[in-house]
Parts: sequence; structure tokens; C-alpha cells
Amino acid sequence: MNDIKDQITAIVSDILRDYEDDRNINRVENFSQPDTDSVKNIISNLLKIIYPGFYREKTYKYYNQSSRLTVLIEDVSYNLNKQITIALRQLPEYCSASFETVSGKSSLIVTDFLRCLPRVREYLATDVEAFFDGDPAAFNHNEIVLSYPGLYAITVARLAHELFLLGVPLIPRIMTEHAHSKTGIDIHPGATIGKYFFIDHGTGIVIGETTVIGERVKIYQGVTLGGLSTRGGQSLKGKRRHPTIEDNVTIYAGASILGGETVIGEGSTIGSNAFITSSIAPNTKVSIKNMEMNIKNGKSSGDDPAQNWFYMI
Amino acid sequence: MNDIKDQITAIVSDILRDYEDDRNINRVENFSQPDTDSVKNIISNLLKIIYPGFYREKTYKYYNQSSRLTVLIEDVSYNLNKQITIALRQLPEYCSASFETVSGKSSLIVTDFLRCLPRVREYLATDVEAFFDGDPAAFNHNEIVLSYPGLYAITVARLAHELFLLGVPLIPRIMTEHAHSKTGIDIHPGATIGKYFFIDHGTGIVIGETTVIGERVKIYQGVTLGGLSTRGGQSLKGKRRHPTIEDNVTIYAGASILGGETVIGEGSTIGSNAFITSSIAPNTKVSIKNMEMNIKNGKSSGDDPAQNWFYMI
Amino acid sequence: MNDIKDQITAIVSDILRDYEDDRNINRVENFSQPDTDSVKNIISNLLKIIYPGFYREKTYKYYNQSSRLTVLIEDVSYNLNKQITIALRQLPEYCSASFETVSGKSSLIVTDFLRCLPRVREYLATDVEAFFDGDPAAFNHNEIVLSYPGLYAITVARLAHELFLLGVPLIPRIMTEHAHSKTGIDIHPGATIGKYFFIDHGTGIVIGETTVIGERVKIYQGVTLGGLSTRGGQSLKGKRRHPTIEDNVTIYAGASILGGETVIGEGSTIGSNAFITSSIAPNTKVSIKNMEMNIKNGKSSGDDPAQNWFYMI
Repeated sequence: MNDIKDQITAIVSDILRDYEDDRNINRVENFSQPDTDSVKNIISNLLKIIYPGFYREKTYKYYNQSSRLTVLIEDVSYNLNKQITIALRQLPEYCSASFETVSGKSSLIVTDFLRCLPRVREYLATDVEAFFDGDPAAFNHNEIVLSYPGLYAITVARLAHELFLLGVPLIPRIMTEHAHSKTGIDIHPGATIGKYFFIDHGTGIVIGETTVIGERVKIYQGVTLGGLSTRGGQSLKGKRRHPTIEDNVTIYAGASILGGETVIGEGSTIGSNAFITSSIAPNTKVSIKNMEMNIKNGKSSGDDPAQNWFYMI
Repeated sequence: MNDIKDQITAIVSDILRDYEDDRNINRVENFSQPDTDSVKNIISNLLKIIYPGFYREKTYKYYNQSSRLTVLIEDVSYNLNKQITIALRQLPEYCSASFETVSGKSSLIVTDFLRCLPRVREYLATDVEAFFDGDPAAFNHNEIVLSYPGLYAITVARLAHELFLLGVPLIPRIMTEHAHSKTGIDIHPGATIGKYFFIDHGTGIVIGETTVIGERVKIYQGVTLGGLSTRGGQSLKGKRRHPTIEDNVTIYAGASILGGETVIGEGSTIGSNAFITSSIAPNTKVSIKNMEMNIKNGKSSGDDPAQNWFYMI
Repeated sequence: MNDIKDQITAIVSDILRDYEDDRNINRVENFSQPDTDSVKNIISNLLKIIYPGFYREKTYKYYNQSSRLTVLIEDVSYNLNKQITIALRQLPEYCSASFETVSGKSSLIVTDFLRCLPRVREYLATDVEAFFDGDPAAFNHNEIVLSYPGLYAITVARLAHELFLLGVPLIPRIMTEHAHSKTGIDIHPGATIGKYFFIDHGTGIVIGETTVIGERVKIYQGVTLGGLSTRGGQSLKGKRRHPTIEDNVTIYAGASILGGETVIGEGSTIGSNAFITSSIAPNTKVSIKNMEMNIKNGKSSGDDPAQNWFYMI
């Protein structure tokens, strides 16, 4: 058996030498990156503020809501300020600014963000209504807040969108990707989403950075509100690449609506798996023509190569 | 730089005022909601009971299985009882009943549930067989129990289904949505699923509340067993909305089978991406007609706008 | 109210009796299975080694990188050795070998694996480049390392693939299924993947065990690189079942490429939702013929049964 200690010494020096190549994945300066665990902790405290009584700390009574809330807000304020100060450094205008300048900017952002919370709650209350009205399987409003992934995703997206509008880099995306990881729903913090938004099931939904969604819109699993070819890559940055969905539109499972000039007119319904790259007039129902099916009777062998093409695993 | 302390006081009182609006997302009474973290902990203890030796507590030997198991069962029994007592309060018949009545009902449910565990293990052992027989990539049975998301999802769904049948609100759905979050597989606790059930890959699978699935059924990633339009919303509650899948049916990736009157006859095979809204006779192979493809040779520019329609990102 | 204590005693003995059936889900021997929590901990330490400065331990400075790294490498080395020793026992050739033989083999594997880390970092640095170049929404390289699920999935897959090549059972799959759970991206550790690999959004991607992918390949959400019918089940074990993707291929969302003899020639572009089961020549653009759509104007009732077929939820 070889001597693992010597091996480790050799391995360590190999990797240290490798760190000295200036790969874009070496960030060995102190405190140069936001702490994703801290951002996750901020999200869970924001959820306690937004949905009082639904998350675990269960010892308060109404008469001390004020002190409970003050503790939560101070915690969010302190940690968010710290993380935003780190993130702002990655903007050209702040990379070499004084600590006072950056942390001053950061605390302005934090207070502006916290002031938004009542408005965010107002929007989320309309989302919960939309979830309940839209889903026959919903037992009551509490079940939606306690267990629906779609509500979790839209909650985090609405919070991240406020930070995005306030010009915070990195952190809004870390927030929505955390929600993406928990729910399979990928909403970019740049997306603009109106009241009474309903997401059912949700896994596989993608909503791109420049998407604009009106009120009372319903979206089911596997829907993409996306861009067309991005061969342009970074050259397309900032350009409008994702569609506009007007009020009262329903988009069923697996449908794709693509392109920055595509507008789905109000009151329209987009059927399952529809693939849309140009605008649709208001009050239109769009669906793919009923697919032709091969139907073959008799004991299914599954080893008929001619038929095998349609199996996918 | 502005004074963050004053800001916080102002923000706290804004949010407190907002709590006083009777939004449906305010639940400030004590202990009125089940604790999702406690439910997750119950799930992990149930997994230790169902798959002895696969989960971390590794210090027991066979001769003290009995004491080990007693500790686990007592823990599940105590915590599940507590959570069910909270959840039952949300049923009209228990919202104003005495504590004795509710906790009495709760402990009857808990013992009935725990008595089901051997039968649930019997079903799950058949699922592990089906996973191994169906997947050439499976190294052995242990790999399936240790790492396959499909087995995790069906395990939690079978446990949640027993609580669903015992009339417990909220908690079964919290359980299956926890599994959905970990696996991307969304099985409603109401769904009835026979022995030897095999799910491969699994991400994007949706199985609705009133689905009925027979024995030896195989389902691949992205399959929906769903409903048709739910414009009816809550008015459809309790109605049969999801399909029946008979024994020995295989449903390949991306297929959708929809509607409460749709029955897939035994021994049938449904091809990838098939879209089915009416019943299929037994021993039938269904597939979409081979899709016509546009094929264009020559260096791919990717900037040909006429071709761009088919790009989605 | 019934006596829960007696009930528990009865339930415990029922389950103990059930453990005595030799179900394939009983593993009551000591230490016979790898510890998934330990494997997750190994992954998070490997991420700290690979992406220095991006993960939480933030107290080091450059001049003690060496001691920091030594601690991490020793921790990974010790725990990985322990887990591999357990896993190797499940290979026929080691199930009854002496402890020295097995742990000797294990430490040879561990040092070979750790020696790969600089090469893995070299590959991952090219992936980060590809992510940045390919995604107009990417703010900078740091955002990609901190938040992109696709990079997390390919990082874990590249590490697991090295252990797979070294003949370690169980653990590589536990690693990639952990990444699958976090990202919705299912990459089997057996898959061979070239440099500059780009995954966007990612949810629903499946890459099978025997897939071979060249350099500068881009893959979007919902893409399957899969097998055809596996009615053969375990009899297909080890056979080539998944496609070959040559250099500079782009595969857009929802496309499926299936079968062990299918080769996508270099420079080709596969459009959204394309379904491909035979080889494609180099520099070809493939897309599904523009789908015919039913378009119906006028206020959308949503209760027109004839139209209902296209709704899926």
C-alpha cells in the first residue's frame, strides 16, 4: 500500500501550482464573493416576514409581533447589507470605491428594498387567490402557502425582482436559482410579472430575463417563455429577447413562446406543446393540430425495430 | 448615509399595519399550521424504518433492532400525532372540537398508519424489483435504494397515500411536495398506484390526484397523467379528472395522457411525446407519426432569421 | 382513546417479523452501505478545492492556501477512502477479500482520483468560458460559478466520471443523483463529455450512461440523450445504448436524440423538440416542420369540449 501522506503533499502542491494559472475560476482574495448560504438564510427570514405564522418559529403571540418582526428585519437588514456590499464591488463603478461609498449605497438599497415588502405581500396575496381558484386539488389557502412549489418560486422571484430593479448584481440570481433548485421553476429576476399569477406543478418552467407578464396569467409545467437563437451570445446582452404575455392569458403544459417581439394578446389560450414565435391576437385559442398517431394492435413485443424509433428513455 | 435604525422602526410599523389587513396569507395565531420541517423529519425516520441499514444511523446490530425500531416508531408516532392534531383543526368537523376529541382521532389515525408499514414495505420491495429489471444502468438493488429519485418519490407517495386515505389534510401533500422538490416528480397523494411500479429519470413527471395505476406499469421522464381544462377550478373538486392506466402499460418519455374518462388498456405501450385524451384498447402500441424534419446542409450560420423559429432557449 | 404504547409494541414486532422476510430492501448488517450524507460532504469539500474563494470558509488568505488545501484534501482523502472501501465490497472480486486488500485498493483509487483534480479544473474552466459566451443573461464569470445549476451539474458529473473510470461502484451515481436532485439535470457518471460544455437552464436534461459528447457542445433544457426501447432490461447492460454528439453541436430545448448507433455530425444544429433516432451528417440543421396550429378567435370560453383535447394540466 502506498504512503498516502506523501501523495497528499504532492497533490496539494500540484493543485497550488494549478491555482497560480490565472483560470477564471480562481478567486482567492478574501471576502470577494457573496455567500450563497447567507443569501439562503436571508430568503428564509424574508419568508417568515411575508407569511407570518407559516414558518417554524412558533413561540410568538400577536402582542409581540412587533419585537419578533424587528428582530427579523434587523437580521435581514444586516446580512443583506453585508452581501450587497460585497456584490456591488463587482460593478465597474464600485470596484475601487471607498468602503463608506459602497456600504452607504448598500444600506440605501436595503431600506428601499424593505420598504417594498408590503407591496410584495399585496401581490403575493393575489397569487394565493389565483392558485386556489385555479386548482381543484387545492384543499385550502394554507395548503398552498405550506406546500405549493409554484408559490415558493413566485415569492422568491418577486423579492429578487425588487433587488434586480435596485441594481444589485449577483444576489437576485442566486435567490432565483435557489428557488429553481427547490422547485424546477426557473424565473429570471429580470422578468416582470403582474398580479394573480398562477403556476401549476411547475417543473421545467423557464421564464427569461426580459419577459413581461400581465395580470391573471396561468402557466403550467414545462412552459418556456424564452428567446430565439442566442448565437449572438453576450452581444445580445440587455436587448429584449423574451415575449410579452398580456392579461388573462392561459398557457398549458409544454407550450413554448419565443422571441422579444412576440406578444400574446389578452384573453388568449395557448394549448399544450404549442410552439409560438410570432404574435397572437387577443382572445385567440391556439393549439397544435391533433397529432396523427400510429396505432398497432396485437401483443406488444417491443422488439419490433421498425417501431422502436418512438421509444425514448 | 441614512439612519438605518429609524428606517427599520418605520418599516416594522408599515409591515405590522399590513398584517392587520386580513390578507389570506396572515396566520398569526399560535400553532395553527403544521410544521413542514417536522414533517420532513418524520419522512426521514420513516425511511429508516422502511429501508433498514440504508440510512446513516449505523451503530446498531441485529440483536438490538427491536430497541432501535421502538425508538424510531415512538418518535414518528409522537411527532406525527402532533402534526395531525394541528392539521385536523382545518377540517370543518374539528375546527372547534375539544383537544381530547382531536388528539384522540389523531392517535387512532397514527396507529392505523403505522400498522400499514409492513404492507407499504411489501409494495416497495416489488418496486425495487421493477426498477432493477427495467434499467440496464442499475448496478444492483442497493444502488436503487441509495440513489434513484424515482424510488424516493414512490416511497414518499405510498406513505402519503395511506395518510390521505385516513382523511388527514395538508400533511400528505406537504410530504409529496417535499419529494417533488427533491426529485422533480410530482405525485399527488390521492393517486392510486399498483405493485411493481417503475419510474426512470423522472424529472417532470406529473401524476394527478385522481389517477389510478395498475401493476407493472413503467413511466419515464416528462410524462403527465393529467386533467383537461380546469377552467371549472374549485367546482371540479372531488370529481374524477385524471386517467386510468391498466396493468403492464409502458409510457415513454414526454407522453401526456389526459382526462378522467381516459383508460389505457392493459399491455399497451404509449410512445414518446404521444398526446392522448381518449381511451386506448388493451395491447395497443400508440406513437406519434414520425415527425417531418427540415434538413438543411451547409455551414450552420444560426443567423438565418427564417430558420430561427425553431430555436428555443 | 386507545393505548398508544401497546400499539407501538405490536407495530414494532410486526415490522421486525417483516424484516425477517428476506426482502431485497433489508440491509441490516453493520456498515454494509455507503453513507450518502458523507458522499454529499465529500462533494462540498471537492467544490471548495475546485473553486477556491467561492464557498463559504472565508478566513484564509493566499499565504495559507497550502494549509487550507491540505486540510481539505486530507478530509476528502480520509472520507472518500472509507466510503470506497464500503462500496468495493459490493463487487464480486472484493466481497470476501481481506480488509487490507480492499482498503489498499481503495487508497490507490483515492490518490489516482485526487491527482485528476487539476485536469478536472482545466476542463471546468473551459465550461465556465462556454457558459459566459453562450448566455446573454450572464452578468459575469462569478455569477456562473455562484448560481448556475448547469455548472454545478457538469462539475459533479466530471468528478463522478473520474471515479466511474477508476471502477468505483455506487458512489459516482450517488454523486450525480445528488446533483440531479439539486438541478433537475440527470447526467450518468458513465457519460464522456468534452471541453467547453454549455448547459442552459437545464431542468429535465437526461444524458445516458454510454453517451459520448465532443467539445464546444451546447445543450438546453429538456434535452434527452437517451436509449431506445429497453425491453431488454438488464440484458442490455454494458452495451452502447446512447448517442454520440460530435464537436460544435447545438441541441435546443426539448430535443431527443436516441440510440447507440446515432451520431450527430460536427457543427450540426438540432432544433427544439426534434426527435432523432438515426445519424445526422456534419454541418446539418435539423428542425421539426413548423407545426400546424388550430387558431380560433372570439372570447375564449374554455368549455368547448371539442377544443378541450389540447388542454393539459
